[in-house]
Amino acid sequence: MHPLAERVLKGDVRATARLLRAIDDRVEGWSEVLASLHPHTGRAWVLGITGNPGAGKSTLTDQLIAHYRRAGLKVGVIAVDPTSPFTGGAILGDRIRMQRHALDAGVFIRSLATRGKLGGVSRSTADSVAVLDAWGAKIVLVETVGVGQDELDIARLAHATLVVMAPGMGDEVQAIKAGILEIADLFAVNKADRDGADATVRDLEMMIGLGHELTHAGAHSLHHHHQGLDLEAMKLKIAAEEWLPPVVKTVASRAQGVEALAEAIARHRAHLASTEKGERRRIERAREALRVVFEDLLLDEARRRLAGPIEAAAMQVAGHAVDPYSAAVALVARFGQGA
Amino acid sequence: MHPLAERVLKGDVRATARLLRAIDDRVEGWSEVLASLHPHTGRAWVLGITGNPGAGKSTLTDQLIAHYRRAGLKVGVIAVDPTSPFTGGAILGDRIRMQRHALDAGVFIRSLATRGKLGGVSRSTADSVAVLDAWGAKIVLVETVGVGQDELDIARLAHATLVVMAPGMGDEVQAIKAGILEIADLFAVNKADRDGADATVRDLEMMIGLGHELTHAGAHSLHHHHQGLDLEAMKLKIAAEEWLPPVVKTVASRAQGVEALAEAIARHRAHLASTEKGERRRIERAREALRVVFEDLLLDEARRRLAGPIEAAAMQVAGHAVDPYSAAVALVARFGQGA
Repeated sequence: MHPLAERVLKGDVRATARLLRAIDDRVEGWSEVLASLHPHTGRAWVLGITGNPGAGKSTLTDQLIAHYRRAGLKVGVIAVDPTSPFTGGAILGDRIRMQRHALDAGVFIRSLATRGKLGGVSRSTADSVAVLDAWGAKIVLVETVGVGQDELDIARLAHATLVVMAPGMGDEVQAIKAGILEIADLFAVNKADRDGADATVRDLEMMIGLGHELTHAGAHSLHHHHQGLDLEAMKLKIAAEEWLPPVVKTVASRAQGVEALAEAIARHRAHLASTEKGERRRIERAREALRVVFEDLLLDEARRRLAGPIEAAAMQVAGHAVDPYSAAVALVARFGQGA
Repeated sequence: MHPLAERVLKGDVRATARLLRAIDDRVEGWSEVLASLHPHTGRAWVLGITGNPGAGKSTLTDQLIAHYRRAGLKVGVIAVDPTSPFTGGAILGDRIRMQRHALDAGVFIRSLATRGKLGGVSRSTADSVAVLDAWGAKIVLVETVGVGQDELDIARLAHATLVVMAPGMGDEVQAIKAGILEIADLFAVNKADRDGADATVRDLEMMIGLGHELTHAGAHSLHHHHQGLDLEAMKLKIAAEEWLPPVVKTVASRAQGVEALAEAIARHRAHLASTEKGERRRIERAREALRVVFEDLLLDEARRRLAGPIEAAAMQVAGHAVDPYSAAVALVARFGQGA
């Protein structure tokens, strides 16, 4: 094993920082070091934290760090900011907010400004989670800004996803799409001392209930049609498998509601452990971790191996001698045949 | 040629809408139809319009539509919203704002909500631009929200990029990163009737000047070191090749500054036509159009052909029998050898 990997496994903060930088810079050999750490990972609980800008995600993350540190756990934090061209201030803000943990050797905070990175935010996040897991984090908080596909990809890398909202953002709850309901395991209505907090909680709970009924309509009608089966057992099974995302009110700036939120997170974790969902989630996470690396490597390899033909085809496209689709089909065929 | 393609080339709005939907739904054969249109494209001028949410991009876009319609040009509009999970309201807003053009057969407005789409926003945008070009648009406005990598990719598909800002957004200008300076050909300071508009213009112009000096420092020192060369000719050449992004003040809600902005856009277009930059930009656009299709097709093909092995590898990763990196390397090798 690479000496750097050994030091990471011993919990060495500087070695961990160095490995993360090497991964960022795509230093030769970094992937092998990461690969050698894999057997020592899988112990960290990964919580995705997402929501609109302004909902107070960073302050809540900061409070969760403090909570888990009081419980004596090593905490990893990954603050993802895929929106940097226009919102360059966000990362700096995060860093300032979480500064108080900077001298705590039990906390490792990593900012990921991923604009322009090869392979994008999913790959960098997956790699960072693995390193912090190997470093010894018992919980890894992955904070992202709610910006589309990256969001959903990152949720697939987490054991649980917490969606943070703030009251008084008007149509917020209605604007939430099915995609968010699918990934949300827990909701926090932060800044709950503001007007409209209870209305936001109510709206969310109604939406969760509705989403749940739609999802389970099939199961219930099945239930009614098989009178011969053990109805009570089936009901219990449905009840045990069910998880209605709880909505927790917090005021992160005053540390209110954080314990209740942490308790809800723990209940969700216990729920996963006691049902088949935990196993399914484990497989989904592995599938996603493989996918992001595979697609990254495949594109890398194709760009490298076909650099010449790609450039020649681009010139033909520019000269309208061929259309991009036909040119791309030919390039894919060429690559797939070992060209 | 496919009958649908023929109708698109004749400017049939319904056929164009149908083809765009077919592309969206990845209907069998759509790519071939698109490919057959390619020889008939390249006539539309593509203007990317980007900037922070709240800067008034949609209102300004609406005014630019009106301007080009007064000039008798067919206008295509693509409103890209890659941020849908949390900002689902944005698209609806765009549609409402541009509604007044809905009955104008010379305007085609397309909303792209690309979350979860295979190939992502770049591919969909490139395809939509090609279709609107074939439909007969003389100008295609591509409006995007400022959210990272997609932004930059889309800029590469455009002939020119307009960055819209609003005054009084505090650190906005300072938060702008080099990436934006690289892609911006024009700036609009919209809502210029608000306090701080002049300061924002000043800050922008200072930043542009600074960026310009840094970029051209090399050229100037070269200039000084080759006294034997024709200095005057070189100066003229530098002057002709130079383009300092102009900063135009607008109040889109009252149609102020729109003519001046359109004039700046026209000047930029003339600048490209009169320098080698135009040709370079054309090749860059072709390269980008090819890249998005190629990467999309390659990933599609790999997922399809390796579905079984990928799933088997994911199970091994889940069982910690292999790490994601080693599994991915094996899958890439397998695909590259025609497996």
